[in-house]
Amino acid sequence: MRMYDVIRHKRMGLAHTEQELRWMIEGFTAGSIPDYQMAAWAMAVCLNGMTRSETAILTDAMMRSGDTVDLSRFGTRSVDKHSTGGVGDKTSLIVTPIVAALGGKVAKMSGRGLGHTGGTVDKLESIPGYRTELSPEAFLSQVERVGLAIIGQSGNLAPADKKLYALRDVTATVDSLPLIASSIMSKKLAAGAHAIVLDVKVGSGAFMKTREQGEALARQMVEIATACGRQAAALVTNMDVPLGEAVGNALEVQEAVSILQGGGDPKLRALCEALAAEMAVLCLGLTPNAATRQVTEAVDSGAAFRQMCRWVEAQGGDPAYLTDPSRFPAAPAYAVTAPVDGYITGMDAEAIGVAAVTLGAGRATKEEAIDHAAGIRIIKKIGDQVKKGDPIATLYTNHAGAVRAATEAYLAAVTVGDTAPKAQELIYSVIR
Amino acid sequence: MRMYDVIRHKRMGLAHTEQELRWMIEGFTAGSIPDYQMAAWAMAVCLNGMTRSETAILTDAMMRSGDTVDLSRFGTRSVDKHSTGGVGDKTSLIVTPIVAALGGKVAKMSGRGLGHTGGTVDKLESIPGYRTELSPEAFLSQVERVGLAIIGQSGNLAPADKKLYALRDVTATVDSLPLIASSIMSKKLAAGAHAIVLDVKVGSGAFMKTREQGEALARQMVEIATACGRQAAALVTNMDVPLGEAVGNALEVQEAVSILQGGGDPKLRALCEALAAEMAVLCLGLTPNAATRQVTEAVDSGAAFRQMCRWVEAQGGDPAYLTDPSRFPAAPAYAVTAPVDGYITGMDAEAIGVAAVTLGAGRATKEEAIDHAAGIRIIKKIGDQVKKGDPIATLYTNHAGAVRAATEAYLAAVTVGDTAPKAQELIYSVIR
Repeated sequence: MRMYDVIRHKRMGLAHTEQELRWMIEGFTAGSIPDYQMAAWAMAVCLNGMTRSETAILTDAMMRSGDTVDLSRFGTRSVDKHSTGGVGDKTSLIVTPIVAALGGKVAKMSGRGLGHTGGTVDKLESIPGYRTELSPEAFLSQVERVGLAIIGQSGNLAPADKKLYALRDVTATVDSLPLIASSIMSKKLAAGAHAIVLDVKVGSGAFMKTREQGEALARQMVEIATACGRQAAALVTNMDVPLGEAVGNALEVQEAVSILQGGGDPKLRALCEALAAEMAVLCLGLTPNAATRQVTEAVDSGAAFRQMCRWVEAQGGDPAYLTDPSRFPAAPAYAVTAPVDGYITGMDAEAIGVAAVTLGAGRATKEEAIDHAAGIRIIKKIGDQVKKGDPIATLYTNHAGAVRAATEAYLAAVTVGDTAPKAQELIYSVIR
Repeated sequence: MRMYDVIRHKRMGLAHTEQELRWMIEGFTAGSIPDYQMAAWAMAVCLNGMTRSETAILTDAMMRSGDTVDLSRFGTRSVDKHSTGGVGDKTSLIVTPIVAALGGKVAKMSGRGLGHTGGTVDKLESIPGYRTELSPEAFLSQVERVGLAIIGQSGNLAPADKKLYALRDVTATVDSLPLIASSIMSKKLAAGAHAIVLDVKVGSGAFMKTREQGEALARQMVEIATACGRQAAALVTNMDVPLGEAVGNALEVQEAVSILQGGGDPKLRALCEALAAEMAVLCLGLTPNAATRQVTEAVDSGAAFRQMCRWVEAQGGDPAYLTDPSRFPAAPAYAVTAPVDGYITGMDAEAIGVAAVTLGAGRATKEEAIDHAAGIRIIKKIGDQVKKGDPIATLYTNHAGAVRAATEAYLAAVTVGDTAPKAQELIYSVIR
């Protein structure tokens, strides 16, 4: 087989054979297929597409290009959750204890934040003592005992995807549905869970800008999982505004705690319960109605919060910070006030995420350190009425010098209009 | 400027700005733009195309990426000719002395053969003493004195094209009209002639398989030349059958001599006269009718043949081989005979070119040596009636071991049918 012919076939709009795709991914991983050939192929895929069957095979080949996590000891109870990334997205911190409280087994690897989106691992590290690195044995044994462990990405998972993504990133070939779907799913499949629930974010703060794009991606990912012998479902959700009220690491942990204690933003709770219910359906074999009921009960009864404390403690974190969030060190607070009377009619989630990064809550390059106390608490959201001078957000930062620019950025990200906007849906659709 | 954005623009189907294209070619030539980005861009061009204006700018940028030959001393009289490559294409050997005899100034750089197509430089080297390397000064002074010099490619002409072509060759991105046109024209423009006549070959033995493709390429190349301030015309010609009767280096020189002495294949003479007339129109300002008349006279009067002898002698070659072609060393001859009665209805020019290579007339890799005496003389061409056992071709080779396979290949390349085929046009169209 020659890579030249593989490229030529895709250039002509033909579908690849399984043999071609597996041979290509093996060769690319091993280094026998050079970057320039892979880049030409990736561009041909961007412009000529891939069939569903090709996409599933590509995903499977990338999944098998490195280590895979063996969760077979948990049977069909192992379940994972993936968000395509958003601003203020702390759902993993809320959803996974709920599902574990119901009997699901969550062995989760999460990423760090980069750019305007945060990372679950950074958020967890704001809890003193929490260990994001566990040995494979400790990781699995904690899942067995406590039902839940969340660590940083470890092992050599889907190296073909890592290499291909780095190449796509510099050749303007990221934005391709089959390539995005196979990239996400190759890592998720390698992480071993039998059931996977995807939260596909759509809107100004997300990679997918329209509902149609998000639904197409969700459908492809669910199909890939099914084709590879796993179970999956996807929620397509609104990321036109930040999720919940907090953006920033310790702030988001505190918000997760208040949701699991029955408080917080009802929209955020609704999304978390919907995600948890989908996970419970897949990993526990519940009907959707039963799953929804049990999820709500787990929150209302405090079982999910107790589960969160058990999990954090098992992983070395100090649960006192969860039961008493005032222990988290606070950064100096600065109010952002409404410039005029009116209604909040728009919020640019991405711009708010960027503002939080400038306050110290995130990193612009992989090497930067994070200030866990920094971030933004959103007071007024879309649809809320404001009077000139009302506080609409609080900025938290230890860099006083960053406040002025972040305030301006926040105000630029928020639109105030004369009439209340139509209420926005949070969950657009569920793809099963 | 970032190459990422340049790629993205072409991926989106946008036209590049002049600045983008010039920046890209400069960066690629200098090595600051890596192969993988250029490969992704090339694939995007293959699938999304380029406008005529983009193609002209790309060509100009590639032309300026290295050395250029300054022929300004010849004013508008400098003229070049380029063939897209065929089997048995010895037209340069015939056309350039005709044009020089009329007063044109031909400072020509030619290539060597590779694969099934021959190269003018290899053909000329079959004349003992002929020097294919001249210093730039000797080259131009010969053109000044004799009107004509043909040397091998020298200097660093259009290095951007060389680098891009090598990359396209391994990424299945050769086959793109704007990239083919700009590749050919960047080298031709760098070679400096004010007027350029292109012979675009179409058919089984050519890169362009259909007349429509050939005409589109011809039109693009003429437009590029015009956009870059040169004059150009193109003939689109049939390469379904080898050109003339000889395939192989010394054999083709002998055929060129016989054309200039008034003999040889009338079709080959007609094509050469048509090419020469186009060149005379452009470089001497003649009307097409006057050019055609003067070209025919130059052949009939022997002026073109005398011009050929002067040129070859000036360049170190022994003109006695031209006046007495029997001096060329002959290789043993083997007859190929008709397998059945009938008419020759088809000839696969490419397969015949490959058969000639196996006899020693060409090289499969750049390093191989050539046997100048080897080749094929075609006796029966399309439309000729044959009887079983009639000789239809003569194979010349010093490798007796290659005869059997070459004979079989030749017979496989020739179709014999019951009825005479329709006569084929040789010149499909002229693009001015």
